[in-house]
Amino acid sequence: MELTNRTIVTRNYIDGAPKESDFEVRSRVVSLSREPAGSVIVRSLYVSIDPYQLTRMKSDSSSQSYSSLATGIAPGEEVDCYGVGKVVASGDPEFEEGDLVGGLLAWGEYCVLKPGAMFRKLDPMGFPLSHHVGALAFSGLTAYAGLFEVGKAKKGEKVFVSAASGSVGHLVGQFAKLHGCYVVGSAGSKAKVELLKGKLGFDDAFNYKEEADIKATLRKHFPHGIDVYFDSVGGEMLEAAVANMNLFGRVAACGAISEYTGSGRKAAPDMVEVIYRRIQIQGFLCPDFLSVHSDFISATCDHLRSEKMVSVEDISTGLESIPSSFAGLFHGSNIGKTIVQIAVE
Amino acid sequence: MELTNRTIVTRNYIDGAPKESDFEVRSRVVSLSREPAGSVIVRSLYVSIDPYQLTRMKSDSSSQSYSSLATGIAPGEEVDCYGVGKVVASGDPEFEEGDLVGGLLAWGEYCVLKPGAMFRKLDPMGFPLSHHVGALAFSGLTAYAGLFEVGKAKKGEKVFVSAASGSVGHLVGQFAKLHGCYVVGSAGSKAKVELLKGKLGFDDAFNYKEEADIKATLRKHFPHGIDVYFDSVGGEMLEAAVANMNLFGRVAACGAISEYTGSGRKAAPDMVEVIYRRIQIQGFLCPDFLSVHSDFISATCDHLRSEKMVSVEDISTGLESIPSSFAGLFHGSNIGKTIVQIAVE
Repeated sequence: MELTNRTIVTRNYIDGAPKESDFEVRSRVVSLSREPAGSVIVRSLYVSIDPYQLTRMKSDSSSQSYSSLATGIAPGEEVDCYGVGKVVASGDPEFEEGDLVGGLLAWGEYCVLKPGAMFRKLDPMGFPLSHHVGALAFSGLTAYAGLFEVGKAKKGEKVFVSAASGSVGHLVGQFAKLHGCYVVGSAGSKAKVELLKGKLGFDDAFNYKEEADIKATLRKHFPHGIDVYFDSVGGEMLEAAVANMNLFGRVAACGAISEYTGSGRKAAPDMVEVIYRRIQIQGFLCPDFLSVHSDFISATCDHLRSEKMVSVEDISTGLESIPSSFAGLFHGSNIGKTIVQIAVE
Repeated sequence: MELTNRTIVTRNYIDGAPKESDFEVRSRVVSLSREPAGSVIVRSLYVSIDPYQLTRMKSDSSSQSYSSLATGIAPGEEVDCYGVGKVVASGDPEFEEGDLVGGLLAWGEYCVLKPGAMFRKLDPMGFPLSHHVGALAFSGLTAYAGLFEVGKAKKGEKVFVSAASGSVGHLVGQFAKLHGCYVVGSAGSKAKVELLKGKLGFDDAFNYKEEADIKATLRKHFPHGIDVYFDSVGGEMLEAAVANMNLFGRVAACGAISEYTGSGRKAAPDMVEVIYRRIQIQGFLCPDFLSVHSDFISATCDHLRSEKMVSVEDISTGLESIPSSFAGLFHGSNIGKTIVQIAVE
């Protein structure tokens, strides 16, 4: 069987904020018979659009090899990403046509998963498939592991979440509330702040774009200090959070979106405060926490079923919407998890 | 019994590098009968001179209350510091005249230790008293706890130590070598570098003042990356170390001398690298690690007795030498632990 596969690839390295014109559609004919034995061809249904991908598209990213999530992507190369799809042709006896799978797919209508690729059969468990790209996938695990394993949030502690209406942040805040923490989020628009304080049940939230002095804003919101800061932003926000942290406070850092485009200033948290207050700043990636994956899935399914937790999703339709969805992340146009639906199940 | 006590106090807040003229001698008559019941008067023999004291002398330090090590010192107030002394008058039945004690004394000929003060009887165990202000006191515990408890250095790992000929750094490097690590230190003069590579047995060392690009220098010294960075410096050195760290690398940060005087730039470690490489930056103070104190003392005494470890001390004599010894720390004039001998035993 031969298929024409259309993918979204970069036209060039991207060193600033991404624009739609940095991307193009590439068509290529794929055939299982020309792939290594045991390969599987999957039709993409939903794919995840994540800010960290930008760090892989920079001109200096080719030497990165810390993690499969970090390897550089040269212009024209396939952009692998988390997604959910359906098997259309299988050379692997474990999979057959029609199986739903979740794992590392790509920004394309199809992808060829070679032996050893990171994917598994997917049981939707009664949830929309899009949840399996967000709340029940890497975004959810990042929120859960970052808050509990890295940030070690305890009941009654004060938690600050930046990019709080984003794919990970909106789940972090809800996990923290359900755990008995006091939670304040920052976001970049009035509508996002209202979502946080309303539907998502944050104790409080603020629009950072309306605050001239984030350090002072955090002091007002946390008169007794911050115990855990869940950082997806870096830059000035990280500095301000550190300045307001309690003794033995923890920063769980999984993203630094303000630093990805090179336009924001790099975080220079006050090291004297870090030392005297014994603050921990810990970078992490969720694949390091697969050991808590089953706990995470079980807790999250319970919360979603009982409607104590909401998965907010920002879904665009069609392969061609990937570049604008991705570029939009850096203008804060998304609310919740950014997903592109490539095809209907 | 009445005594005239001469102390070294600050004349003003100090917001830049300290100068001798920022200090003065103050005389005051003390008498045990006018102190709270249970107080003890101690004659200082050796007192510790430490860079962190500068952070307590700044105009904005009065609100600090993270730790007794961090409380602000207003002009004219006594400067408490680690020291060794001899009891001259005691209202506490646990202590009698002539007892040697170690603990928080002060920059003065005498100090009055009120009930609850942090000090204890001292058994010199055959070592010079000055060792009980440095290698066997807070400097040693900082080195030991920072390297093993915070940095979690393992045999075979690669350790970078800044301010490596300083009070803490020269012990860190020796502990690390004795533990089977590969150790490189940075220091600020040719003589210091020679001391590190020679007498102290570091695998390698460099003079940071002769290096235009510390990041590149570290890349050369650590072609396989840094696992543990023991940071007493902050600023550019911290950035360069983070840029050269391995996956899951640890920064044990106990000082930021380059940032204390406000002249150096604040560290802005690349958060994208911190995240992808899952780096931990942990501030710490040694009093949090009293649980390992007896292990530390036993290991350090063994190393010193077997001459596998050397305690390098930079001892000046007389109360009046405190201001110049302290100011000298910020010009790198000291080698090893800076101590002032106030009186002969």
